[in-house]
Amino acid sequence: MKLHILGCHSATPRSTVFPSSQLLEINNELLLIDAGEGMQIQLRKYKHKFNKIQHIFISHLHGDHFYGLVGFLSSLRLIGREKSIHIYAPVGLKEIIELQFILTKTDINYPLFFHELSSLESELILETDKYTVKTIPLEHRVYTNGYLIREKTALRKLNIDAVKQYPEIETWAYHNLKRGKDFVREDGSIIPNETLTLPPPPTKSYAYCSDTIYKPDIIPLIKGIDMLYHEATFLEMHKDLAVKTKHSTAKQAAQIAKDAGVKFLVLGHFSSRYPDETQFIKEAKEIFENVDIAEEGRSFEV
Amino acid sequence: MKLHILGCHSATPRSTVFPSSQLLEINNELLLIDAGEGMQIQLRKYKHKFNKIQHIFISHLHGDHFYGLVGFLSSLRLIGREKSIHIYAPVGLKEIIELQFILTKTDINYPLFFHELSSLESELILETDKYTVKTIPLEHRVYTNGYLIREKTALRKLNIDAVKQYPEIETWAYHNLKRGKDFVREDGSIIPNETLTLPPPPTKSYAYCSDTIYKPDIIPLIKGIDMLYHEATFLEMHKDLAVKTKHSTAKQAAQIAKDAGVKFLVLGHFSSRYPDETQFIKEAKEIFENVDIAEEGRSFEV
Repeated sequence: MKLHILGCHSATPRSTVFPSSQLLEINNELLLIDAGEGMQIQLRKYKHKFNKIQHIFISHLHGDHFYGLVGFLSSLRLIGREKSIHIYAPVGLKEIIELQFILTKTDINYPLFFHELSSLESELILETDKYTVKTIPLEHRVYTNGYLIREKTALRKLNIDAVKQYPEIETWAYHNLKRGKDFVREDGSIIPNETLTLPPPPTKSYAYCSDTIYKPDIIPLIKGIDMLYHEATFLEMHKDLAVKTKHSTAKQAAQIAKDAGVKFLVLGHFSSRYPDETQFIKEAKEIFENVDIAEEGRSFEV
Repeated sequence: MKLHILGCHSATPRSTVFPSSQLLEINNELLLIDAGEGMQIQLRKYKHKFNKIQHIFISHLHGDHFYGLVGFLSSLRLIGREKSIHIYAPVGLKEIIELQFILTKTDINYPLFFHELSSLESELILETDKYTVKTIPLEHRVYTNGYLIREKTALRKLNIDAVKQYPEIETWAYHNLKRGKDFVREDGSIIPNETLTLPPPPTKSYAYCSDTIYKPDIIPLIKGIDMLYHEATFLEMHKDLAVKTKHSTAKQAAQIAKDAGVKFLVLGHFSSRYPDETQFIKEAKEIFENVDIAEEGRSFEV
């Protein structure tokens, strides 16, 4: 699992500063999380293949989190997309996108599915062989969700040296061994799975929380995860502004990370009022040590 | 009058290649013509002041000509815009923009006026003290207009040396002299205007024609103008594609420029299939000598 930052600033795009958008790389697939204006420029700049994206998650309907989506969907049509696209977003985005396609006479020639969200409780919205995605209800000026992505337990690894000591285990049996089953000989006797396989690699988990006021009730949902991206629009010196605009400070994001016992915290969604973004790290480190800031083009191994 | 290219390519934005958008600078005002995605990134990159824009002209409702508009309008709100904005665009854009502002709970706190266009005839859509703007009906896959901007005749210049020879001419009289009126002495005798003033500088005119199939019936509208921007999505070798998609070739754009007797032609809206855009100049020059290509960040004195 790897996180690629396409944009991590609030409000308006500039030449090198883009609004919220990121990719979570998982099993050679790219999950697109938020789609601020210019997101497709960033995809090309950092050479991410459009075709690896199939699932798109939009946190909320503020322009700096979705204005880049319609252009990306249009570009997919131009480059001959065939695979389906699934969009998970608050109620309303479907109407916005479809109105534009109707009025521009754009015929989207690939299957496009909208999964409209309106629940105030965390819900499972996607499950594949490899991972699950759940919503994290946040609190902002409009209806907002974060997203929690968890790898499923991987297959156990064959211990080839051990397996080779049993000529009766043929390759057709490997499928079940990897899934934790014991080997049963023709005479009914058993070779325990643990003697033939090794434990699977640990699964990874990642949560995206933006935009939100300080909301400690998300802590049980993200308990012990490997990486948390949490918005830190402001520094503590502007805490009143954070409350007023329903955003968080770096300190508050760090408090969430600490109380949830996450392994690593990435801060983002910075207001353009701060010329030096290392201030966000400094403020957060007073509460939580394993923290860094997002930057356009930067990647983090989860 | 000066033309600034923000974007001049067809289809999707890339790091250095942006879809259609340009500024016409006239009397310290910036007219924004088309607004492809990332237009506001380009405005900042080339240091054009957002505040100098009051009139926005959208040619047609294809995404590469307007997807950047909603983000720009949102940014104006964020930076505390107070002056009004006027948008001239085909019917439908108002609905697209307003739906997004409703669903994002965006309260546009400056006066925003939409002037919806649907006429198939050229019409005068804006007249100020300094210039007029008329539509140029084009033919594309959706309803499309080009725009013709003409400076009004400027004021005559005072011939200060001449004026000083007549002590009876006080400064309060300059206003009328600049407007071509004779000076009338108290005794009723006259000093002719021509002896006191010099002719005004010549007025300039500019036309934007994108996107369109080869459409020679626009020629009377743009006869003798100073500068024509005409789309040239394709080269002549792909003329069949131009016809099919209702675009023009470089040769066709040059033919329009020649037949209209314009002074200078700027080509744009290039398809990304051509790695070397000087081919467009070469093809056009066979028909019309005074031609150049648009490039992101380039400016042309009209």
